[in-house]
Amino acid sequence: MFRYELASATGLDGLRKVDFEPAPLGPTEVRIAPRAWSLNFRDLAMPRGGYPGNRKIQTDPPLVPLSDAAGEVVEVGAAVRRFAVGDRVCPCFFPDWVDGELEESQLASALGGAADGVLAETVRLPEHGLVRMPANLSFEEAACLPCAAVTAWQALMLARLTPGQTILTLGTGGVSIFALQIAKLAGARVIITSSSDEKLERARELGADACINYATHPDWDVPAREWTGGVGVDNVIEVGGAGTLERSLRAARVSGAVSLIGILTSPEQNPSPMLALFKRLTIQGIYVGSRVMFEALCRAIEAGDLHPVIDKTFGCESVDDVRAAYQYLKSGSHFGKIVIAR
Amino acid sequence: MFRYELASATGLDGLRKVDFEPAPLGPTEVRIAPRAWSLNFRDLAMPRGGYPGNRKIQTDPPLVPLSDAAGEVVEVGAAVRRFAVGDRVCPCFFPDWVDGELEESQLASALGGAADGVLAETVRLPEHGLVRMPANLSFEEAACLPCAAVTAWQALMLARLTPGQTILTLGTGGVSIFALQIAKLAGARVIITSSSDEKLERARELGADACINYATHPDWDVPAREWTGGVGVDNVIEVGGAGTLERSLRAARVSGAVSLIGILTSPEQNPSPMLALFKRLTIQGIYVGSRVMFEALCRAIEAGDLHPVIDKTFGCESVDDVRAAYQYLKSGSHFGKIVIAR
Amino acid sequence: MFRYELASATGLDGLRKVDFEPAPLGPTEVRIAPRAWSLNFRDLAMPRGGYPGNRKIQTDPPLVPLSDAAGEVVEVGAAVRRFAVGDRVCPCFFPDWVDGELEESQLASALGGAADGVLAETVRLPEHGLVRMPANLSFEEAACLPCAAVTAWQALMLARLTPGQTILTLGTGGVSIFALQIAKLAGARVIITSSSDEKLERARELGADACINYATHPDWDVPAREWTGGVGVDNVIEVGGAGTLERSLRAARVSGAVSLIGILTSPEQNPSPMLALFKRLTIQGIYVGSRVMFEALCRAIEAGDLHPVIDKTFGCESVDDVRAAYQYLKSGSHFGKIVIAR
Amino acid sequence: MFRYELASATGLDGLRKVDFEPAPLGPTEVRIAPRAWSLNFRDLAMPRGGYPGNRKIQTDPPLVPLSDAAGEVVEVGAAVRRFAVGDRVCPCFFPDWVDGELEESQLASALGGAADGVLAETVRLPEHGLVRMPANLSFEEAACLPCAAVTAWQALMLARLTPGQTILTLGTGGVSIFALQIAKLAGARVIITSSSDEKLERARELGADACINYATHPDWDVPAREWTGGVGVDNVIEVGGAGTLERSLRAARVSGAVSLIGILTSPEQNPSPMLALFKRLTIQGIYVGSRVMFEALCRAIEAGDLHPVIDKTFGCESVDDVRAAYQYLKSGSHFGKIVIAR
Repeated sequence: MFRYELASATGLDGLRKVDFEPAPLGPTEVRIAPRAWSLNFRDLAMPRGGYPGNRKIQTDPPLVPLSDAAGEVVEVGAAVRRFAVGDRVCPCFFPDWVDGELEESQLASALGGAADGVLAETVRLPEHGLVRMPANLSFEEAACLPCAAVTAWQALMLARLTPGQTILTLGTGGVSIFALQIAKLAGARVIITSSSDEKLERARELGADACINYATHPDWDVPAREWTGGVGVDNVIEVGGAGTLERSLRAARVSGAVSLIGILTSPEQNPSPMLALFKRLTIQGIYVGSRVMFEALCRAIEAGDLHPVIDKTFGCESVDDVRAAYQYLKSGSHFGKIVIAR
Repeated sequence: MFRYELASATGLDGLRKVDFEPAPLGPTEVRIAPRAWSLNFRDLAMPRGGYPGNRKIQTDPPLVPLSDAAGEVVEVGAAVRRFAVGDRVCPCFFPDWVDGELEESQLASALGGAADGVLAETVRLPEHGLVRMPANLSFEEAACLPCAAVTAWQALMLARLTPGQTILTLGTGGVSIFALQIAKLAGARVIITSSSDEKLERARELGADACINYATHPDWDVPAREWTGGVGVDNVIEVGGAGTLERSLRAARVSGAVSLIGILTSPEQNPSPMLALFKRLTIQGIYVGSRVMFEALCRAIEAGDLHPVIDKTFGCESVDDVRAAYQYLKSGSHFGKIVIAR
Repeated sequence: MFRYELASATGLDGLRKVDFEPAPLGPTEVRIAPRAWSLNFRDLAMPRGGYPGNRKIQTDPPLVPLSDAAGEVVEVGAAVRRFAVGDRVCPCFFPDWVDGELEESQLASALGGAADGVLAETVRLPEHGLVRMPANLSFEEAACLPCAAVTAWQALMLARLTPGQTILTLGTGGVSIFALQIAKLAGARVIITSSSDEKLERARELGADACINYATHPDWDVPAREWTGGVGVDNVIEVGGAGTLERSLRAARVSGAVSLIGILTSPEQNPSPMLALFKRLTIQGIYVGSRVMFEALCRAIEAGDLHPVIDKTFGCESVDDVRAAYQYLKSGSHFGKIVIAR
Repeated sequence: MFRYELASATGLDGLRKVDFEPAPLGPTEVRIAPRAWSLNFRDLAMPRGGYPGNRKIQTDPPLVPLSDAAGEVVEVGAAVRRFAVGDRVCPCFFPDWVDGELEESQLASALGGAADGVLAETVRLPEHGLVRMPANLSFEEAACLPCAAVTAWQALMLARLTPGQTILTLGTGGVSIFALQIAKLAGARVIITSSSDEKLERARELGADACINYATHPDWDVPAREWTGGVGVDNVIEVGGAGTLERSLRAARVSGAVSLIGILTSPEQNPSPMLALFKRLTIQGIYVGSRVMFEALCRAIEAGDLHPVIDKTFGCESVDDVRAAYQYLKSGSHFGKIVIAR
């Protein structure tokens, strides 16, 4: 059995493919054989040691990378009730966060960060940390869901998405495109930003109602507000980081929401929270989501026949294949998701 | 200026068309000239004296009937800020319920029941009790909204409608068809019932995912549950009355909702609430909705270009015209809304 | 090791005390040794076969009775992380309902009904189905919590209890007295009913603000409303059954809540749900609660140094001891909880 | 009739006492005669021009200062239904925010900032912008409520305060002390900070469970977390500004809340929002509250017989009296509220 490991926190040079001996299953565990994986922006941080809380890579390398996969159940523990061999499933980003609010103890289960991830020929997981794939998706499409799509789902649902709301989503990465697709599925209007007119055109084809090129409109919050008739947007899917948060707060309506998702890279640009106060904003930290949220997302995907947008698919044969996927993500030129497949 | 009145609580024979002298406007009042009206099931009760709480017709007839209209603003009070002459507006069913939870004092403002309604050449209303019509609707379409569409909206939103949920709506009257249309707009699945295969076919054209003929399947809760894979539906739009509530409780999933809307006509068939307990159901009484709900609905209608389904339009020239509209509603053969227009 | 069993669904005559061989623990299981137990109204139904859903006693007797206990951890499975030997714990009524909304699959875990209960020398439970006892309680006091106190907690919290609300609780059984104590702890006002002036006096000592003798005031909803200045109460803790629900609906304020808890014994008195509609009431089915609710309750009990009210404590030595506890509960003369202790 | 005015945005030197001619009442307006007023931290900003959004003082001085008062109704408009002459009332901070979410149009009604305030012999207000005083309070006590107590109430209620939660409140100003009193009334635990051991001692007498001197513990978030057993607090009442927000985010539990209230004075210390993301925090901007919140607060105050803590009372006879009140507030040596009375 093969798996990939990040041997140390010294960069992608530490990525290696190794053989491993699968451990026997506990009574409530399930073994899955991933058929496809996907990358997320957070995965770029792991080769450098991750961010606070990713103890595995920091204190006990190597780390098996990646949180996102889709595959088949190949073995079940003696007491497993929810799954059978042959079931098509995805792992949950936090296998221990089943329902309700995230608790501190569940953080340690984050795949490919606090805990070993899924870039392996087989993976052992607790049955409570798996969901059934949407029936309308291929393995490659379903592999896009666990981190980015669940994040977009939680961000939209915590702020009580309703038809007719206006959502502003920043950029065209995985979370943003899922937010666009889910919000359209739910009858909302969507404003999207990008520095590329070509990407904006693709977003428009996916249903975006308004497209703002932030290169030519660096004050993108102003046209966003104008597009809502001066009211402001109901929820900003804020994936951009310190450089954008101040504008996101401006773009939101009074009593609106800003869903904080982005991994911030320039802390010196921290925004003033004064606007949050005087506009009675909710700034909601979003950290992926629970299994129950993932299951609800799967129902929505099936009901609306939503298909994740895959930008490019890489192989999993060699370290070079996998490294190429990481480097493509790093280049930032993608639109939607980057997949690795068998 | 003409208006219609129900002279007494003795039936439709008491309907008459009279001249009236419009009162001058208070500083925060608006005068509208309706261009179209619509009927609701509740309006059938008023000629018979209404149900408990409709004090106007019971204690101080005559009553100007109907809650639903759409028209133009023709005059505004000195301090009016939200509207100008020429604006296209609808009255709110409860002009005094602006936002938040319904309060007892607001019940007295119910148009065409506790207070005089809108079947008149002009109507005087507080500016806080009006909404701007959706821009994509005609007067006849917008006249369908104030009671039935707002009711459907509140029923779906209080139970936190999300994409992928399954909604069960009973029959093909105004509320049910709006519930179907709004739920589809929001990415949900919809099961609908009717005793007419022809009506079910029309519902399917509007997006219904599953259609159950309750004449041929009197145990319609069974196929409804089966269609959800045995889980049960997330929310039942219960407009049917005592004869259906027990089945609605059966059709709902554990921790699901039953939105109680129907005007019950056979109280001897009251259901046992035991199922509510053992399934942890929420039985939510729905009584139309607030102005803020109506405004959110209008945004959704514009975003999704939703058009109300009008079954038939009647004239307003003579008492016979209007009575014909009432009688057509009473016959129960309609699908969607019945409109009166100038 | 001893345990009690209901041998059949033919009444308390089927109660017997037997020896049993404890099964070995799974890796995530915990063995506890109860030091005290408590009875709930539902336990009276089990010897007669239980109500719908209690499949164990119906299809596969014998059933170990009772859901409520408090005791010490005496053994833990190899992978148990949350508990250690010596910890003082209570079982959860639904060991599988950890957080979020109740799901159908979790119903099968209900102790002493759908599944074997806890009236035994030792009990084997999943670690996710236990909570740490409040530090300020004795075993006998903590044994009162799992069913009645968690039920009262969920009923109050789902309706968003705030200081200054008025709660109406019916009777002086376990759930009602817990609702009284928790609501007072939370700064609410409480109206309580009983047919005994002596019990009402004891309720007043526990903080009840208004006491209504329903024997002398059979129309108890009228004085309850009057006490609120005619507004109605925010939440009715409805434990009474069919005979009281109609009055509970009348006692609630517009947009208020009725928490449906009672096991109904006279279905022919089913109330009309019309009031629910015209008052926009929420009738909320309450079925005990989740582990996370129980943990929140324990924090509240510690913060407020709340002590359950124990009416009488029985022994566990003989079948006669235990049967006496059941019979005392059946007599209805208790105030608060009935306990069995070692 | 006298009133006070801030003649310009040049500081307290611009404060003057003038005669004015009361305008006649509109049909839904009420005239009140304040008997007491209170000051809030925001009032210190008005003589300097206020903060963004306080258009009145910036563009159209003079401004009648202060939002907080309590007094008697002395005259009612012809159509007023909610109040009568002699009623004891408080104005709402935002007279136009009745219920539901704050909307942009309601910001313009903020008393003593965006609109003229209440430091006058009589004040004219819309009837929808008044609440009845709690019956257990004096005018001086009730004058403390409109801004600070409603702010504390919204901050606690939006985060769904329950008994047993732990609240961390910063400092001993008006909002903090109300948050302490309300949280204790609701059965919560409270941690409070101050740089004065004497003030901490007074807080303890009001019920504070843990007191942290931030002068001797500049890393006060560490003992706050420790006191919760390492879990973190449920809600931080963040009145401190940029210098404290980073620590507040650290003090909160995973999935907890930080209620953002303080008027920030050192924007260069803006915190990184990264913690919000990785702990899934809700940072909730709080801007006083609605009339319905104020009414709920009044019910809680009556139910718990809560009395605002008044530090010192000043006269209203001369400009010097009033200026002394402002200067005492500015000194920061107070504990609770500063009142001006007739």
